[in-house]
Amino acid sequence: MPSPEEICCSVLERITPGREERERVLTLAEEIMAKLRTLLAQEGLEAEVRLEGSLAKDTWLSGEADVDIFVRFRPEVPKKFFKERFLPLARRAAEGLKQVERYAEHPYLECLADGVRVNIVPCYAVRPGEWLSATDRTPYHTDFVRSRLDERLKGEIRLLKKFMKGIGAYGAEIRVGGFSGYLCELLVLYYGGFLEALKGALRWRKGVVIDLSGYYEGREDEARELFRHHLIVVDPVDPGRNTAASVTLEKMCLFMAAAREFLARPSEAFFFPPELPIKSDPELEQLIESRGTSLLAIRTRIAGLPPDVLWGQVHRTLRALRGTLKNEGFRVLRMGAWSDEAEECVLILELESSRLPPVVKHVGPPVWVEEHVRRFLAKQMANPGLVCGPYVEGDRWVALVRRRWPDARELLQAKLSEDGGRQIGVAPLLAQRVEEHFDILEGTEILSLCRELKSFREWLADFLIGRPRWLAPGS
Amino acid sequence: MPSPEEICCSVLERITPGREERERVLTLAEEIMAKLRTLLAQEGLEAEVRLEGSLAKDTWLSGEADVDIFVRFRPEVPKKFFKERFLPLARRAAEGLKQVERYAEHPYLECLADGVRVNIVPCYAVRPGEWLSATDRTPYHTDFVRSRLDERLKGEIRLLKKFMKGIGAYGAEIRVGGFSGYLCELLVLYYGGFLEALKGALRWRKGVVIDLSGYYEGREDEARELFRHHLIVVDPVDPGRNTAASVTLEKMCLFMAAAREFLARPSEAFFFPPELPIKSDPELEQLIESRGTSLLAIRTRIAGLPPDVLWGQVHRTLRALRGTLKNEGFRVLRMGAWSDEAEECVLILELESSRLPPVVKHVGPPVWVEEHVRRFLAKQMANPGLVCGPYVEGDRWVALVRRRWPDARELLQAKLSEDGGRQIGVAPLLAQRVEEHFDILEGTEILSLCRELKSFREWLADFLIGRPRWLAPGS
Repeated sequence: MPSPEEICCSVLERITPGREERERVLTLAEEIMAKLRTLLAQEGLEAEVRLEGSLAKDTWLSGEADVDIFVRFRPEVPKKFFKERFLPLARRAAEGLKQVERYAEHPYLECLADGVRVNIVPCYAVRPGEWLSATDRTPYHTDFVRSRLDERLKGEIRLLKKFMKGIGAYGAEIRVGGFSGYLCELLVLYYGGFLEALKGALRWRKGVVIDLSGYYEGREDEARELFRHHLIVVDPVDPGRNTAASVTLEKMCLFMAAAREFLARPSEAFFFPPELPIKSDPELEQLIESRGTSLLAIRTRIAGLPPDVLWGQVHRTLRALRGTLKNEGFRVLRMGAWSDEAEECVLILELESSRLPPVVKHVGPPVWVEEHVRRFLAKQMANPGLVCGPYVEGDRWVALVRRRWPDARELLQAKLSEDGGRQIGVAPLLAQRVEEHFDILEGTEILSLCRELKSFREWLADFLIGRPRWLAPGS
Repeated sequence: MPSPEEICCSVLERITPGREERERVLTLAEEIMAKLRTLLAQEGLEAEVRLEGSLAKDTWLSGEADVDIFVRFRPEVPKKFFKERFLPLARRAAEGLKQVERYAEHPYLECLADGVRVNIVPCYAVRPGEWLSATDRTPYHTDFVRSRLDERLKGEIRLLKKFMKGIGAYGAEIRVGGFSGYLCELLVLYYGGFLEALKGALRWRKGVVIDLSGYYEGREDEARELFRHHLIVVDPVDPGRNTAASVTLEKMCLFMAAAREFLARPSEAFFFPPELPIKSDPELEQLIESRGTSLLAIRTRIAGLPPDVLWGQVHRTLRALRGTLKNEGFRVLRMGAWSDEAEECVLILELESSRLPPVVKHVGPPVWVEEHVRRFLAKQMANPGLVCGPYVEGDRWVALVRRRWPDARELLQAKLSEDGGRQIGVAPLLAQRVEEHFDILEGTEILSLCRELKSFREWLADFLIGRPRWLAPGS
């Protein structure tokens, strides 16, 4: 077995950009920045144009360059100026590139040049703590990290980012709920290296506080009280901000689990997950039929929802559906969702069984809660579905009655048809779309989606197997 | 609808012994007591022979007389004297009657004369608080109650006892876990009457303290601390004793529930539950097949177990079986047991279903519990029944695996065969018998027991219906 260090060495070679790639990307950035400066000057606008992000810090991964160009305006500039005057100007600077307007807190321009994403982002030149927009911190992040970097640390950061990507924990977007690039940088700076960060993560527990600035030293409980999060990485540029706020408990723990595994059984699979051979329809059919569980898929359209909104709605909806099914007695084993982030979305719930026995126990009120007892007895004695009782068990009235929803698919079909599922907690923007159209598919019916939806086949195979690809058989 | 008072009036007529019955029973008692006194004198034994219990207090129910004759010896008499010299003497006094020796804390003689049970019980003449045996309190109980009674109260006590019998809450024996006759007497004395006791019970909550002696007045919490029981009725003869210690939470609440119902819809059915028409085999078959649940019956022999021991073992065993089934994922709706208290016993468990889906979710350790994680992953990765995962969910490793016991009958069959079920908590004296022989029957197979076991048919019909007979359709 190779040592962790050997693996790191070999991975580093593959992910560090070469001279040629570096020059190509930097030239692209310089050209756009130069155009921006010229245009700004022509318009008589005072603003600093800066390269930010991983490119500026030289912590980017070969083949995955993002050019982040920030334009810093003086605080007096009103926000509507960004949309009305800055965006058109940015469009001209990026003429000839494919362009998409994006909205984070405020508008910015995203372009594609030769597979390289270029973001042109306006922000305010303010002093730390006097933030006017969410992106105002970025130049300070760049400066902070750059001031601490050396060549070795740049490589260590690249390793951690690639590791996070490989295990599916990279990215602060809601779909992932994972670790941002800046967060990876802070972790490497804090622990002093990639392997050190992995070892450090093994000691994490819920409520761990990582504070590079030492701002909360000796009063970590204050940080926990303030941030109320399982993973707290204090932003050295703004001690009131938790850089890890985007990291879900599951992704924090996924990273910890992967760290443990990598240190015990190092392998490049953590950085470069092996491609699974594409499963044919009969193979998937066999996977579904042999497992003995019930799979339910809800397909709906999601046109018009930006990814972060979409995934927020999806996660909320999955939790609500799980709750509804659980309340009706179903045992939900797992859930997941696929989307092309443009038109289509599929929610999947895996149940022990989508059919339940026909009788359920209704536990009524304690015998001494007069009014509730009266209503419970009146209701159950008149219930045509009463099977047994009512009788007293422990301190409560109890009855066995016919189950209202013995079939999960029928339950979902009925509830989603009513009002798009709002009553059972389907998130409102998704409910709107469900109201217009949805399909429920069960078991091998789901295979039809593999033929219709691009990349769904791979996602489904991954979901069905469920095991991280880095988890070695000998674990 | 008749008033509660009218019902009471009419019931009282039926349950108050008439002159003839009274004379017959009292004559029987006097004769045996006279013989006892003569025999004791012949043997030169100094002891007081007293009539105790409901007969002495004139609170007994017509047709249900118990003659309790107590013989009070001086404290110097050793306990083995009771068995060695007293019992033979009692036998001679009860010559010509059917006799059974019984053991409570110490031996006593039970006889049957013309359908009347006669108990001849030795005890010690000691001062209150200096009790040498459990029965030493009885004469004090008799004296206390008698000193407080008048004719009206005797009737009220008869009503409460008959009400308790009617709803199945009468008797301190473990099979019932209900209200003793003395406890009924104390409740009527405390509340001043039968209906007053019912109304009083509506205000009961867990930890209620009823203290006729006022011993714990203003420090009821001390009584709760001392007795740690849901129903505390301080014995006025011994403030260190909870007269209601035998009352289970369920029987306390059954009484409260019945009291509420009786006051709302008075009926003689509470005192004289209507006989159910005996169900034929096809009727029972229909009842079982139409309900949609799974019934499992375990039949075993119980020869040699005195009733209180038997029922203690039965209740403990039922709880253990329920726990085992629940742990394996089965939903246990109800349970019950029948016994002739001599040879045979049948435990019944009603499940939502005795079959479970083939896959179950195993929730493993949190990712940071190093040693457990190592073992969980090693075990699951090598598990031929692994269906999905292992994967990280929330902060834990999780896996979907084939269920070990998808069939409840097979589970019970295997566990009971192993060691009589000791490992899954079958109580030891019952496990001994199970080891020798047991049968498991499921669903309509249980009907065969109705043909074999006397009175099981009625018990089963009652169990299947589950509703107290006093619960009126309009409740």
